[in-house]
This record gives sequence, structure tokens and C-alpha cells, in this order.
Amino acid sequence: MEQQYPSELLEKAVDEFSKLPGIGRKTALRLVLHLLRMEPKVTHDFASSLVRLTDEVKHCKVCHNISDTDVCPICSSLKRDSSIVCVVENIQDVMAVENTQQFHGLYHVLGGVISPMDGIGPSDLEIESLVSRVKAGGVVEVILALSSTMEGDTTNFYIYRKLSSLDVKVSVIARGISVGDELQYADEVTLGRSIVNRIQFNGKY
Amino acid sequence: MEQQYPSELLEKAVDEFSKLPGIGRKTALRLVLHLLRMEPKVTHDFASSLVRLTDEVKHCKVCHNISDTDVCPICSSLKRDSSIVCVVENIQDVMAVENTQQFHGLYHVLGGVISPMDGIGPSDLEIESLVSRVKAGGVVEVILALSSTMEGDTTNFYIYRKLSSLDVKVSVIARGISVGDELQYADEVTLGRSIVNRIQFNGKY
Repeated sequence: MEQQYPSELLEKAVDEFSKLPGIGRKTALRLVLHLLRMEPKVTHDFASSLVRLTDEVKHCKVCHNISDTDVCPICSSLKRDSSIVCVVENIQDVMAVENTQQFHGLYHVLGGVISPMDGIGPSDLEIESLVSRVKAGGVVEVILALSSTMEGDTTNFYIYRKLSSLDVKVSVIARGISVGDELQYADEVTLGRSIVNRIQFNGKY
Repeated sequence: MEQQYPSELLEKAVDEFSKLPGIGRKTALRLVLHLLRMEPKVTHDFASSLVRLTDEVKHCKVCHNISDTDVCPICSSLKRDSSIVCVVENIQDVMAVENTQQFHGLYHVLGGVISPMDGIGPSDLEIESLVSRVKAGGVVEVILALSSTMEGDTTNFYIYRKLSSLDVKVSVIARGISVGDELQYADEVTLGRSIVNRIQFNGKY
């Protein structure tokens, strides 16, 4: 049975909230009523931050990451090594790699991976712009840091083929046992790969 | 370590989203990026529905439920029995009782329950207005439909005392085994109450 709301304004707000992924109508109602209990300023700030982001945000011309400026802080930083480009799926992945503090090159955000099931082909992604970027020169290595899924692997292979005729080293991130994981609980594919791709050990990591 | 966002606009939007209860920063980022992938109109509609609700919503003068008008549709309906008032904690509870289609009287929304731990006393709730409403006449029965918690029970007792000198019947909703529940899994307090408060059975429910 359709839930009856005592107010159309409330119903409209719940409708809008429940359009967000993972937010059902009960959660939406809870969030809307929370906002109603707060000072009006809280809702105004919340709403205006979303509208400002939507209206004013840009994508970096170089790496296609979200940015406040035409060229993002990473791409315009003089401290970064512009000869290495790390290819990632989305902005969360840029943030994840940045958090490791192990990478000092630049990024290239594809905007997804090739996924015929979802109707996403190479032309929907920033692959041509990656090829142009490499062709423009200055890039020595492209690191493919995509998810370890069928779609990620397909995309890795597609990009590898596209770049193979160019004078650039293409590498992929290592796959193996997660740090802290017990061997017995690792899946056999991961464990197998970590044995095949073993590296020489000199007594420390 | 503090997460680095590539855009201040993005960070601000994530900050605002993660102020909502149950929304962490990762979920907030996911929701904000979802909105960014949609048409700008989606975010504008979302934001304006919240602002309109905050700025324009009213509380019914009679029952204190959320309403678009000074008196809510339930309180102003001629089909409802104004001699019975069901006292509930919040608007979700009004919706829950309405959904049963078993109640045709009016409501009184307290706005919470007495909870010294959270600093909520009787004066923070719509209890005086309930007493005034009963004193004004026309109310034959007050049904207390609060949560079956310590705070709910305390509030039930407080309201009962306040109304005891007035010419009104006070009842509480039945507590017992949930419909569809197996007896062996019911907690002993609930099962005990359902035995003590057994009702005469005439062959059907």
C-alpha cells in the first residue's frame, strides 16, 4: 500500500531523497525529518553546497578529474612527476591512490571501465584523450590501476593495445595477497597470481 | 589520515551530506558523485524540495503533526471521529497507525518521549497542549500509542496522571506476541504480558 504523507512538501522531499542510490523511502523520511528538526540554515547550507557543486564544478582538462580550476592541483603541481601517468576508473580511485602516498606522478581518470553489459564502450571513456596525451610526448610510463574485475581486465587490455604502438612503458598494479591477510583464507586465483608474480626478497619490504 | 579531495566544492558538499545521521564520508562522496553524474536539474530539484519544505512546512495547530496547512487534513476531515485522540511520539508513528487502517480518530503528536538521559522533559513535549485539548471538551478517549520502552512507559504514566482528574477514558495499545511470530522465540516479558492481558476468544480474530 502506498504510504500516506501528511504534507505534500514532505512527500516531495522524500521522493527526491529516495532517488539517491541506496536510500529507500524509510531512510529518506528519516533524513528529511532530521533536517526539519535542525535550524533552517542547516538545510539551506546543505542545499546550496550541492547546487554550487553542480553548477560550478569543472573537470581537469588534462586528467579529467573533478576540479575547481581548469587544470587540477595535481596536474599543475611542479612537485609531481609528469612522466608517469596512473590510469584509474574514477575520482574515488584517485583519492585512494593519493592516500597511499606511494605515487607522485599524474593521473588519468577514465570515467568508468568498458562494460558491454551496461552499454559502456571505449568511446564513452577518456581513452582517446589518454592516447593523445601519450602521443603529445613526455610520458614514459602508463600504470594501469583499474579494478581487478572482468571489466577492468578488458579495459586494461584495450588500453594496452591502443598504446602498444607508442613509445611508452605500460604496467599494471600488482595483484596478490592483501597485506595482513592469512594465506588460508585467500582465494586460489589471487594466491596463484601472487606465486606466479613473486618478487625477489632481500630481507625487507 | 584526512582524505584529500580534488575540489573544495566537492569537499564542502561531502561535508554537508555527512552531517546527516547514518551517512559517513564514503557514502556522502558516493551520493554526491551520483548527483554529479545526473543532469543538473536533478540536483536543483533535490535541493529546492528540501529548501521549500524547510521554509514552508507548518505544524497542525490541533495535533502538531507536520502539515501544509494550519490544520492538517486528518484534523479537518469530517470523516474522522474527533472524540478519540491517539497520542503518538512522532509523525512516522502517525503514518504507521494510518497504514493499519484500523484507527479513524484524530492524533496528538508529542514530538518525542520523556527521556531524562537526553534532557527531554515533559515541557519539551506537546503534553500541556494535549491536556488543554481534552479540557476543551469533546474528547471521550485518549489512546496512548507510544513505544514499548522505559521512556515510553514513563511518558504514558506522566500523561495518565495529568489526565486522571479529567473526565476522559485513557487506554494504551495492546502488547503481546507479534502476529506471525512463533511463541518460542518471543521474549518472556512480552509473552508474560500477552498471557496476563489475554482476551476472550469467540472463534475468530
